[in-house]
Amino acid sequence: MLIKERLFTPGPVPLPPQVVKALGQQIIHHRTPEFTQIFLDTRKNLQKLLKTERDVLMFASSGTGAMEAAVTNFFRKGDRVLVINAGKFGQRWREIASTYELKLIDYEIEWGKTYDREKILEIVGEFPDIKGIFVQHSETSTTTLHDVRYLAEVSNKLEDCILVVDGITSVGVYEVYPEEIGIDVLVTGSQKALMLPPGLSVMYYSEKAEKRLSRSNLPKYYLDVPKEAKKQAKGQTAYTPAINLIIALNESLKLILDEGVENLAKRHEIMAKATREAVQELGLKLLSESPANSATGVYAPAGIDADDLRKQLLKTGFRVAGGQDHLKGKIFRIAHMGYFDFMDVIQVIAGLEITLYKIGMNIELGKGVKKAQEVILAETNF
Amino acid sequence: MLIKERLFTPGPVPLPPQVVKALGQQIIHHRTPEFTQIFLDTRKNLQKLLKTERDVLMFASSGTGAMEAAVTNFFRKGDRVLVINAGKFGQRWREIASTYELKLIDYEIEWGKTYDREKILEIVGEFPDIKGIFVQHSETSTTTLHDVRYLAEVSNKLEDCILVVDGITSVGVYEVYPEEIGIDVLVTGSQKALMLPPGLSVMYYSEKAEKRLSRSNLPKYYLDVPKEAKKQAKGQTAYTPAINLIIALNESLKLILDEGVENLAKRHEIMAKATREAVQELGLKLLSESPANSATGVYAPAGIDADDLRKQLLKTGFRVAGGQDHLKGKIFRIAHMGYFDFMDVIQVIAGLEITLYKIGMNIELGKGVKKAQEVILAETNF
Repeated sequence: MLIKERLFTPGPVPLPPQVVKALGQQIIHHRTPEFTQIFLDTRKNLQKLLKTERDVLMFASSGTGAMEAAVTNFFRKGDRVLVINAGKFGQRWREIASTYELKLIDYEIEWGKTYDREKILEIVGEFPDIKGIFVQHSETSTTTLHDVRYLAEVSNKLEDCILVVDGITSVGVYEVYPEEIGIDVLVTGSQKALMLPPGLSVMYYSEKAEKRLSRSNLPKYYLDVPKEAKKQAKGQTAYTPAINLIIALNESLKLILDEGVENLAKRHEIMAKATREAVQELGLKLLSESPANSATGVYAPAGIDADDLRKQLLKTGFRVAGGQDHLKGKIFRIAHMGYFDFMDVIQVIAGLEITLYKIGMNIELGKGVKKAQEVILAETNF
Repeated sequence: MLIKERLFTPGPVPLPPQVVKALGQQIIHHRTPEFTQIFLDTRKNLQKLLKTERDVLMFASSGTGAMEAAVTNFFRKGDRVLVINAGKFGQRWREIASTYELKLIDYEIEWGKTYDREKILEIVGEFPDIKGIFVQHSETSTTTLHDVRYLAEVSNKLEDCILVVDGITSVGVYEVYPEEIGIDVLVTGSQKALMLPPGLSVMYYSEKAEKRLSRSNLPKYYLDVPKEAKKQAKGQTAYTPAINLIIALNESLKLILDEGVENLAKRHEIMAKATREAVQELGLKLLSESPANSATGVYAPAGIDADDLRKQLLKTGFRVAGGQDHLKGKIFRIAHMGYFDFMDVIQVIAGLEITLYKIGMNIELGKGVKKAQEVILAETNF
């Protein structure tokens, strides 16, 4: 019998029909006035999204490309940097920084937790020459939010430090305004809350970061910020751009800006809250002590393999993500970023109830749904 | 904040992605071997759907066109016919039959009810010269199922009577096998359980009905069955066919045949049962005494205008249909035919709960969802 597959994974995420439509169009050439105009419009809309008038660059790469560019363009070999390493993507910052022989302070944090302010002060007290702090705004592997505002304060007090933020699962989920917050380099990717297929990354950098560009001595060719900055300001790119993704990004940005970033952030907050309260109502435990609004990590019930639970959940039509590394088989992650609304959240909770019931848990059907409905009713004017 | 609009109306219905994709293609010419092959494949798949090897015709018209063709091609002026008139679409049979000056026995039935067997026997006892019985298999306006099998028995016992069935909201919902059931003329439309946009209708006719073609003296030009039958057997059409709808129909028939008509009928049965039991659990009353599996008609709570309730329900994202004529403002109709699965049904029930709560009804959130979950768990091996 027909069971529709519904994607509740933290990337890729479902595409809005307007994006699907834009992607289904015949390609146009990028060296044309038509594409230049689309590129410049998209750039302007990205600036609106991030509330900035500074350069916002697009690369034909996944988010990791932009992460690498953030290292290779704004640092020198031997620069001392602090990495907030609290999950799979924290590790990625560490790996990239190591690859380019930065001097690494690896602040390892138990998965599911965020950093400790005292510890940060201790580190920067001991190493005032830190040139950069690397962090995930939302650490997708552990569905954890890290407070970037506090890190910005710390970074600004140091002599010559920039704050580099992976906003891959936070841009489009929160109000991420780098100038206001004090983020120096912000990167994001297309296949998350920007509601696109993978293959496009975005980078913002501050005036302070810009000054670093000329002193950087790390090797780079494809992901060269000054080269791209010069081109992109005129609606060109140094290398072939991801044409159809940029056209589609312009569509998804229109949706985002029409809703308004504040409304969008509120919607994600409510969806996340409804999900968290509903799974707890069903007797499940959250993974994160500082949960992000992009996705919710949940421990499988004792004695149940989370991946078996996921397989059972897929039978009702819902594809959610599992845990990575040592969390594999222990947790599952329900995404609610991008093209999701309240009724989507209620639906996945209802599917989870059916799944828990099927695997023999003693749960009351409808109880999680009721909790989610209550959160939504309390927080909206439905 | 983003609220997705979800279509739960009894036509048009949501399109499967495969159909959307097929519709989004460049047009091809109909006088080509390529289209002829598609036409013949589609015809063969329609025959599989209806379990017949007889002619199944396609017209570029909505369902009403095929209804009119069923009158003009198989009857003569002055033929006595019985119309089972139990709703808006029963009225339509009456209107078409009157337009062509058939001698009408109008068996009017209270909306929400089906025919009475005794009454049928009484009528055919009094008028054994009846040349046709007209009925809706599923009367969409009242969400009522009429038993066509019994009418086929009655019709077959008469000297020269054919049973003409509007299967517009039953083909693709039930196992509708006209030869096995004894239906002589069956019509359906594209925008219902065939999961397509409007604009294409389908007609099956029996050997017995075929013999009527040459004796019919009613005027027709565009919807001329013998003319089309000759052409369509060779993959041609008398007039320009609805090219892209036929290509899309071929896709939706593949989906239907892959699922299997038996499975599909079972799915619709479960979805309808879950909907009916859930709305009753919420204290609401069903419209129909003989409810169909295509859509569920529900009375609004006492003192509540059903159309106000629908407006409120639309705020949560669900578009359902209202009542027609004297039922306007009194009932609403939730469709579950075509591209719907169990979790869709649960979702609309959750939305209805939120709506009833918002308009001040004393309902327990999650209660209807629980009931729907229970029906689904009992009837499936999720």
